[in-house]
Amino acid sequence: MRKRQGILIISDGLGDRPIKALGGLTPLEYANTPNLDRLAREGCTGNVYPIAPGIPVGTDVGHMEIFGCDSNKYYPGRGPLEALSGGIEIREGDVAFRGNFGTIDEEYTVIDRRAGRIQDGTRELAEALSGMKLKDGTTVLVKELTQHRVAVVLRGKELSAAIVPTDVGTANEGAKLVIPCPEDPACKEAAKTAENLWEFTLNAMEILKNHPVNQERVRNGLLPANVIITRGPGQLSTIPSTARQLGIRALCIAGDITVGGIARLVGFDYYVQDSFTGGFNTDIMGKARKAVDSIKEGYDWVIVHIKGTDLAGHDNQPLEKVRIIEEIDGMAGYIMDHISGEQCYIAFTADHSTPCEARDHTGDGVPTIIWGGDVRRDKTEKAGETFFMEGALQNLKARDIFTIQMDLMGFTKKRGA
Amino acid sequence: MRKRQGILIISDGLGDRPIKALGGLTPLEYANTPNLDRLAREGCTGNVYPIAPGIPVGTDVGHMEIFGCDSNKYYPGRGPLEALSGGIEIREGDVAFRGNFGTIDEEYTVIDRRAGRIQDGTRELAEALSGMKLKDGTTVLVKELTQHRVAVVLRGKELSAAIVPTDVGTANEGAKLVIPCPEDPACKEAAKTAENLWEFTLNAMEILKNHPVNQERVRNGLLPANVIITRGPGQLSTIPSTARQLGIRALCIAGDITVGGIARLVGFDYYVQDSFTGGFNTDIMGKARKAVDSIKEGYDWVIVHIKGTDLAGHDNQPLEKVRIIEEIDGMAGYIMDHISGEQCYIAFTADHSTPCEARDHTGDGVPTIIWGGDVRRDKTEKAGETFFMEGALQNLKARDIFTIQMDLMGFTKKRGA
Repeated sequence: MRKRQGILIISDGLGDRPIKALGGLTPLEYANTPNLDRLAREGCTGNVYPIAPGIPVGTDVGHMEIFGCDSNKYYPGRGPLEALSGGIEIREGDVAFRGNFGTIDEEYTVIDRRAGRIQDGTRELAEALSGMKLKDGTTVLVKELTQHRVAVVLRGKELSAAIVPTDVGTANEGAKLVIPCPEDPACKEAAKTAENLWEFTLNAMEILKNHPVNQERVRNGLLPANVIITRGPGQLSTIPSTARQLGIRALCIAGDITVGGIARLVGFDYYVQDSFTGGFNTDIMGKARKAVDSIKEGYDWVIVHIKGTDLAGHDNQPLEKVRIIEEIDGMAGYIMDHISGEQCYIAFTADHSTPCEARDHTGDGVPTIIWGGDVRRDKTEKAGETFFMEGALQNLKARDIFTIQMDLMGFTKKRGA
Repeated sequence: MRKRQGILIISDGLGDRPIKALGGLTPLEYANTPNLDRLAREGCTGNVYPIAPGIPVGTDVGHMEIFGCDSNKYYPGRGPLEALSGGIEIREGDVAFRGNFGTIDEEYTVIDRRAGRIQDGTRELAEALSGMKLKDGTTVLVKELTQHRVAVVLRGKELSAAIVPTDVGTANEGAKLVIPCPEDPACKEAAKTAENLWEFTLNAMEILKNHPVNQERVRNGLLPANVIITRGPGQLSTIPSTARQLGIRALCIAGDITVGGIARLVGFDYYVQDSFTGGFNTDIMGKARKAVDSIKEGYDWVIVHIKGTDLAGHDNQPLEKVRIIEEIDGMAGYIMDHISGEQCYIAFTADHSTPCEARDHTGDGVPTIIWGGDVRRDKTEKAGETFFMEGALQNLKARDIFTIQMDLMGFTKKRGA
């Protein structure tokens, strides 16, 4: 089978619902998008479910599915993903948590789950804790993430992620830290892991209390980061390499390190540079140029991720979402100008919907386009959730869209003969 | 439930993509098809996936699904299918291979995997080998298929298909014959089967060497068919009889013996006559008459298969594909003229897409119609992949279409009460 290439543009959280302030249109429908409209007119379209109708997903699960990986089978939990995105090379058997630097009082009451939204000094605090040895020989790895966030990994023998960790949850600030316990008291590995986590938590409190970063914060009237609060325990299952299974060389270009972490997990290369921020102000045209260059270098599949549409959804800023969509449209135009549709398909999708008025992820289908020389065209004339309801891809799932792209590119294997 | 009858027309490899030489239309869209257009206008339509979006399938797997059988569960491998299509009644425990008559030199180097594309005399050669007894009591059945192809079945105790057979593969002509071995050296059944296959191969070489057919070939300057090269080992899993499960009497009319073999596997009768060739020049109107006659005889479901559209796709001959589609349209017209839509549904589908420009099977959906007195009509006006994207059956799967037909015909069973 003849091989071709593909570029996939992912607009995070793109999907939306009719918004009164936009005259009953969605941001994608309201935006001026000549290039996305052309992709829609000349390609096939639909609203596509990340997993199944009405099921909302996180960025991590959404991207696993877009990358052709069955999240139901292989999703390792948020802890391992955060650890991976923080650059910790987690191994089989490790138990990883996501966590926050927080503030507690002497009776372990949680004063603030985010230590006054601490930004500076978390690297020093994490370094002061990372490498800690526990009594049974388990090692603890700690790595700061963005803002108050942190990844914690227990590396030792016979550990289990089936435990209740220390976090009290957002709704329960003012409660005491949870003392970890196994989900099933009969599970020795989980009991041991819970003890390890508590030992680490207490040790960390001792070290953090007197750390210069915290002394400085207290002097400045800020809440000290005197505890690490953990949640989302998980172990890495053996995730199959999509890249190896299909024999594709793929690159993911993204400012968002969670997306980059997922890409690496399924065997794709990951590219980020300082100007690719994963924020509102990312260097969209820089990403477009990198995508085109990577196709010319010979990558089979290049993924470009833009986070801003999701952030605008969470913040209920429809016009900001419109603005970012128009920037993405410019990116699509640049890409179309610099590649040949005969040799390289272009697809456009989202990992989930983040409707502005919902301010959170929902289970709506996400607007999706596949475009290229010999793609069967449907009758859609314009980009938008409403228009795509009559498209050929309507009601398919993210993993179907992955497979369809791979089939167009010539990387699927025939069943039977 | 009142029972009705059904005719299903299968145009092998029909699905295609927009083709520049046809003004951006697919062959089905380009062809003049008044009868298929009428079926589409009065029936319900869609593009239907053989298994799942983007997954290409072979003719065998595609037809298993069209016939209501879960290929993922029951696909037995190509060897048993070839043996069945050749008329060998394979049994539980048999290990079947597909094979070629080939030419090797005295050092077992494969000179030609197809013995100069031998056509004549293969029946005599197969008969000289079939029934061979091996040392451990295993019997070998050999049956010639079309051209240089042959089916080989090992019938004995405790055999396994998990072996590496003798074929060097198309890319490796000039290499030595592979000496069979078990995939897992620890598997005794596989080790024994590998030994049996090698014993058969050596014995067959002795017999073929001096066979009059080969003496004649050598005299005429042709390559002798002095070896049988085997591949695709498989054992028959217990495939459920669709016919028995639903209580239908079904007939498959096809020139292609693989399709006929699959039909028999699921409990359908199979009809072929010399003029039904499975090639470009098959007797399409003869098949149409046979289909109508069989409905009048009382068959519940009659399947008519035409291979030419697939062959034209593999050969990248869009206009030939158009010509065959127009012949199929004539067949559809004949059938509509000779049956009553009140008593007999007509459906039209394909086992997979073979887009001309891809020259191979792809995972695109296949154009599908169901027509008959009380079928719910969608708004489709004309036959074609693009038009069917808005049809009611869009994005369903082949087995769904089977079940919908059986339900219309009154052969499904209610779940619950």
